[in-house]
Amino acid sequence: MNTVFRQITIIGLGLIGSSVARAIRRVRPAIRLRGYDNSAAVRGEVRELNLVDELFERASEATSNSDLVILCVPVGSIRRVAQDASAGISPSAIVIDVGSSKSLASAVLRQSLPNARIVPAHPFAGSERSGPAAGSAELFRDRWCILTPDEHAALEDVEAVASFWRSLGSRVEIMSAEQHDLVAAAISHVPHLLAFSSVAAVTALEEKHGQPFIKFASGGFHDFTRLAAANPLVWKDVFLSNKSAIIEVCALFRNMAGMLERLIEDGDEDALLGALEKPQLTRLNMSLGS
Amino acid sequence: MNTVFRQITIIGLGLIGSSVARAIRRVRPAIRLRGYDNSAAVRGEVRELNLVDELFERASEATSNSDLVILCVPVGSIRRVAQDASAGISPSAIVIDVGSSKSLASAVLRQSLPNARIVPAHPFAGSERSGPAAGSAELFRDRWCILTPDEHAALEDVEAVASFWRSLGSRVEIMSAEQHDLVAAAISHVPHLLAFSSVAAVTALEEKHGQPFIKFASGGFHDFTRLAAANPLVWKDVFLSNKSAIIEVCALFRNMAGMLERLIEDGDEDALLGALEKPQLTRLNMSLGS
Repeated sequence: MNTVFRQITIIGLGLIGSSVARAIRRVRPAIRLRGYDNSAAVRGEVRELNLVDELFERASEATSNSDLVILCVPVGSIRRVAQDASAGISPSAIVIDVGSSKSLASAVLRQSLPNARIVPAHPFAGSERSGPAAGSAELFRDRWCILTPDEHAALEDVEAVASFWRSLGSRVEIMSAEQHDLVAAAISHVPHLLAFSSVAAVTALEEKHGQPFIKFASGGFHDFTRLAAANPLVWKDVFLSNKSAIIEVCALFRNMAGMLERLIEDGDEDALLGALEKPQLTRLNMSLGS
Repeated sequence: MNTVFRQITIIGLGLIGSSVARAIRRVRPAIRLRGYDNSAAVRGEVRELNLVDELFERASEATSNSDLVILCVPVGSIRRVAQDASAGISPSAIVIDVGSSKSLASAVLRQSLPNARIVPAHPFAGSERSGPAAGSAELFRDRWCILTPDEHAALEDVEAVASFWRSLGSRVEIMSAEQHDLVAAAISHVPHLLAFSSVAAVTALEEKHGQPFIKFASGGFHDFTRLAAANPLVWKDVFLSNKSAIIEVCALFRNMAGMLERLIEDGDEDALLGALEKPQLTRLNMSLGS
């Protein structure tokens, strides 16, 4: 970090917030860490794990005098939390939110904190586990973090935030909130939606046929159950806050799946083989690129 | 193994066949291993890796005098390979095929070898990599292997084959070919179909929007690209040989995904949360059970 953050406040200390705290502690132990969570149970865990220097029961107290405030709450809670915290946020502080969808979240954050130095961010990192005990200082290492500054953001603030995420091990890219939302829908939100649907379908099959299916889960389905075990409270908000991009990607996906199904039904060997070979090329390109 | 197999022939030495060879070598080094593959390139690799004691260029020679013959070829090649091999198969030999769909494969195998002692098997094990170099002696360890004997199979043969797979580290379960095909469609075939479709959809998005998507792949989508990198030649056959079960599971999946999409579009928070919570329970049950 070139910009020196002397005190950072983390609002929301679940999987992501507690991982940010751990990562800061590891790479910049001199930074003073303040934390807030609205759940007494989470605060208890955070205290036991000793993740921050000071823990508060009010968001507005937690933010006071910090140079950087990071909101790590579900997208649907950003408005309330930002309003609660606003009184304590210094005019010189930079504010980051880490929501998984950016267009809506950024608009809400801007409305709630009209004069703040906001740099929205989305670290592409997560786990099927939730809560402060599930966090890790390594959660962001070698993962992408997308910044989506709006037209009010100062270049130096964007650079400070980029450098902050890089110091936690992330690779940083900057794009518009709309571009981000489509990327996030394609590589994260819709895959999770498919996984949730898939596990629900197999559960329905078990009930219909009265025989076990899920216990045989191997490679393919096992990955799906892991994705579908993600925190429903977080994912409800993610899905609802990125509707239009999710609907666009789902439509494309449905076309592709429908085409494969038709080729299978028709027994069209050559066309089916051709369709299956394309994803393999994509995967090969990815391996060569990484 | 209680039944002593002194000589085993493996027909088809790709990922699965070469893994069977490696696993046998490790747990029962005294067994004489014979191998056949119709590809000269594969035979070359197998010779270099020294995976079998004798390697043949004709299936009928490879099978001669073996107590156990294991067909490890794509489902669509079973008929041709079984017919090629049939002249060499001893009447006392047990024949296993490892195809991923059983109703069709078993019928084809029974037609091609009407008097053979057939015990169809499907080890739920695989990898996105193909070919003999990708195999592993550990591929079957702690994975399910489903046996689907038909009404002609002798109980002692089923027991011998069950004990064979257990010796390679597998957990064995016996069910009808129809039951197996529905389980395989639900936990493997349809997840692969969704992964192939998903990678194809994201590739289409990249072309449509002229911006990168796949390079950001994290948790969710990364698993999909791995599944979609599976061998297209093998998967074309899998899909075509298990049509009706795949169509049944796809229909159920489509209902579930359509329901989630509608709840997202309607912004129905409570119903969406309820729908997302069910898969998490499934996952928790799985963890407790394993």
